[in-house]
Amino acid sequence: MSDSAAVDQEAAGARRARGAGRGAGGGAAARRAARAGGGPGIQLTYITRKMGVYEVLDEEGLALIEKNADTVLEETGIIFRDDAEALEMWKQAGADVRGERVHFPKGLCRSLLRSAPSTYTQHARNPERSVQIGGKATVFAPVYGPPFVRDLDGNRRYATIEDFRNFVKLAYMAPSIHHSGGTVCEPVDVPVNKRHLDMVYSHIRYSDKPFMGSVTAPERAEDTVAMAKIVFGDDFVENNTVLTSLINANSPMVFDETMLGAAKVYARHNQACIVTPFILAGAMSPVTVAGTLTQVLAEVLAGAAFTQLVRPGAPVLFGTFASSISMQSGAPTFGTPEPSLVSYGAAQLARRLNLPFRTGGSLCASKIPDAQAAYESANTLNSTVLAGTNFVLHAAGWLEGGLASCYEKFMMDIDQLGMQQKFCEGVDLSENGQAMDAIRQVGPGSHFLGCDHTQANFQSAFYRSSIADNNSYEQWLAEGEKTAPQRANQIARQWLESYEAPFLDPGIDDGLKDFIARKKESMPDAFT
Amino acid sequence: MSDSAAVDQEAAGARRARGAGRGAGGGAAARRAARAGGGPGIQLTYITRKMGVYEVLDEEGLALIEKNADTVLEETGIIFRDDAEALEMWKQAGADVRGERVHFPKGLCRSLLRSAPSTYTQHARNPERSVQIGGKATVFAPVYGPPFVRDLDGNRRYATIEDFRNFVKLAYMAPSIHHSGGTVCEPVDVPVNKRHLDMVYSHIRYSDKPFMGSVTAPERAEDTVAMAKIVFGDDFVENNTVLTSLINANSPMVFDETMLGAAKVYARHNQACIVTPFILAGAMSPVTVAGTLTQVLAEVLAGAAFTQLVRPGAPVLFGTFASSISMQSGAPTFGTPEPSLVSYGAAQLARRLNLPFRTGGSLCASKIPDAQAAYESANTLNSTVLAGTNFVLHAAGWLEGGLASCYEKFMMDIDQLGMQQKFCEGVDLSENGQAMDAIRQVGPGSHFLGCDHTQANFQSAFYRSSIADNNSYEQWLAEGEKTAPQRANQIARQWLESYEAPFLDPGIDDGLKDFIARKKESMPDAFT
Repeated sequence: MSDSAAVDQEAAGARRARGAGRGAGGGAAARRAARAGGGPGIQLTYITRKMGVYEVLDEEGLALIEKNADTVLEETGIIFRDDAEALEMWKQAGADVRGERVHFPKGLCRSLLRSAPSTYTQHARNPERSVQIGGKATVFAPVYGPPFVRDLDGNRRYATIEDFRNFVKLAYMAPSIHHSGGTVCEPVDVPVNKRHLDMVYSHIRYSDKPFMGSVTAPERAEDTVAMAKIVFGDDFVENNTVLTSLINANSPMVFDETMLGAAKVYARHNQACIVTPFILAGAMSPVTVAGTLTQVLAEVLAGAAFTQLVRPGAPVLFGTFASSISMQSGAPTFGTPEPSLVSYGAAQLARRLNLPFRTGGSLCASKIPDAQAAYESANTLNSTVLAGTNFVLHAAGWLEGGLASCYEKFMMDIDQLGMQQKFCEGVDLSENGQAMDAIRQVGPGSHFLGCDHTQANFQSAFYRSSIADNNSYEQWLAEGEKTAPQRANQIARQWLESYEAPFLDPGIDDGLKDFIARKKESMPDAFT
Repeated sequence: MSDSAAVDQEAAGARRARGAGRGAGGGAAARRAARAGGGPGIQLTYITRKMGVYEVLDEEGLALIEKNADTVLEETGIIFRDDAEALEMWKQAGADVRGERVHFPKGLCRSLLRSAPSTYTQHARNPERSVQIGGKATVFAPVYGPPFVRDLDGNRRYATIEDFRNFVKLAYMAPSIHHSGGTVCEPVDVPVNKRHLDMVYSHIRYSDKPFMGSVTAPERAEDTVAMAKIVFGDDFVENNTVLTSLINANSPMVFDETMLGAAKVYARHNQACIVTPFILAGAMSPVTVAGTLTQVLAEVLAGAAFTQLVRPGAPVLFGTFASSISMQSGAPTFGTPEPSLVSYGAAQLARRLNLPFRTGGSLCASKIPDAQAAYESANTLNSTVLAGTNFVLHAAGWLEGGLASCYEKFMMDIDQLGMQQKFCEGVDLSENGQAMDAIRQVGPGSHFLGCDHTQANFQSAFYRSSIADNNSYEQWLAEGEKTAPQRANQIARQWLESYEAPFLDPGIDDGLKDFIARKKESMPDAFT
């Protein structure tokens, strides 16, 4: 596979030549694009926050939760299920292993995690799209996991590989989406054992942003790594990080063989794992915020430390997915105060571990992209960003508690992401920002519309929404009384129509196709 | 009017007897009601934030803006229009008055503001509904000002006194609305010169929460004070605060005779003024955040200091209303990053002046209660609350850039307010909150649904939304595929149907009716 590495270098060179006009990391042009509210075109680099974070726990509260998590790890322990290798590794590391349950001496996990990097670069096949994960960086990635879509004709139906490609394309075009994500929807028209090949290929072929790997079986993780090596080259993959993948705990306090298998594959190849307790509080964790945070911390400590047993220095994220169950229906609820408190608190705990942090997104329980969806998504996204989250999965397109990927919601959400990105730039205190000349020039009782300063800053001063209708009531009536999702629908159609694939070296493309064909041939047809 | 004071004492006694079961300020029962997501019933006391605030400017940035504001006050000055008395007062105070323009020596306004209280109590006719304004308190009040309503039949039409009463009733019933507000809509079916009498009467008759006074003419402010005296008694009004009213600057850098006239009336009677530059950045202030903050601070310093010239010690708030104009249509935009930054920054400047702070609410530009309305409102409300805002006008019901009060939006917004109130309680770190027994009892691989801790905390653990549908897709389909506003519509109808007026002493009621009848008789009929 060293051939493909050579090819990749060429491709990278070609891309650099081709992309010269785009400007790495944006600058004024990209900022203008962002302020213009999106639209396919100049892409924004991941966010580097100039703003502080919001915190909900003081030192005493944090120390209490850390002490309690240590107690859970030592007394209750964590199950590593059906994975003798993992149990043996923990024994070697000094843990007290009883059956499948691992009890951790105080401080063991923390000490193992000292080898984990606080930030890392996830390389994209287009180097301009590579992202930093950790520190002051925030990266937005699309929705992950839904088996259904709500399509542009208003149907709610099972997702297909065509939908998958469409969401990859939209994410590629969205200026404020920095990452192509993973299972942007489940392409249920492809057999489950082959699906990952088409998904990984779609991310590579239809986008040039970084992406996530398959975690549904260790061999699918291996396939992902193999495909990444065709794109980036063997050595590059082994010595860098080109995949960030999702390793969910089976809360409460279990890691199962599937996730452990995938985690081992990725960590061994120096690829990043997001160790995430997927929590519906009240069902998978205690019904209180502090209790949930304690359990989350214990689970992450065990799972993340495990990656360091596999390969010290492999990137690993402190992840959490926070929701509460509805006491009426048992269904997950979003955008409510308790998950926000969990996210803020978990972000603080992650910072104290020097680990990059993942939570939140644009989460909602609504079945349609209505006001409920928007309130819940905005509440979640605001707390996600102000918590200082480094990797934001589900940042766009999530509907119906994660059961459906929604095109219209995707377009509305990316507009919101653009706003968050602008917010994170903070207050411009330059002389131009201070605008004292403008105040002097205009003076009392006049207006600033035509003054020099307004004219000079007109284009870039305010974020310009691609979705919002700010016209008069009369004009809105005349234009057909459109709702926000109706406007979003129109833009999604325009984008998909005007989509152009990024350059991919034909040699790499053929290599990927060959690999997929060979793999698929070796698999039983009817396996689903 | 000392009779009415005596009557009021009796009424208060009766209310106390009647309200014994309600519990002053809530306690467990009120918290349960809040968590149940609202519904008419037990009322919540104003928020006492247990959480910190989010800040966007550091010491250097704040000092820079303060220095610039001082420069504006000294060099550019502020116009006090058509008010010779005000100009004379400024002359006496040591300002440099040139025509109508007042130039302020450095430090003059700040020094005058030392007499303004950092917090005050606004008394309600039901003492249990009195609110603290300032410090760690946050008070939610309804939308203010719209000439139109979007009614429960989906019509957008001019507002009537019937609508006004309805919004007062809904605000009275809403647990997380702490204040009855002011012009909840403009009752355009009542002549403009008489309208204030019916509005003030509605607040008193249909609610027992604190309310705002008329500011559209000095004599209407006097009428408001006179009516308050019928309710509270002369002495009580002169020595306490029972009105908090809105004094807008005519930005840039003008206070006009109407607002100055009203401000003088209220301050003289020890009633509170919210001095608020109403800013559409790019038109009424510079197009940048720092420039807008500078102008806002200069205007507030001048306007708030003026109230202290009128009566040292009269309560005054640092207000701001932050919006940006759309560069396409010139219309105000909401929920975008720049107004959030202005709100956060202004809150910091207010804290440094030791003044209570007003900004934000549930602002949006959408013409209907759709996803645009919700995204914009949630963005605004989140920044409003995290900024540490003390008085939140427009907290519910605002639509269409403030042109319409919307019943459905009102019901959706109060649900969001309940969430914010719960959020502000912060993380419970008690032994029960830590839930260590629950984690021990449940252990790995099980679930928390039935455990003792969950059972004990089931009712109060999670905020329960009154609007969100968290049911399965299939159940939602079976129930008619309702949108959030459709559910809100139903609840509003139920509330208005089940509304019961709070007790009002018949003597006070007659006194108010007599006053209004005499006033109306003395006015020309056709004056509009």
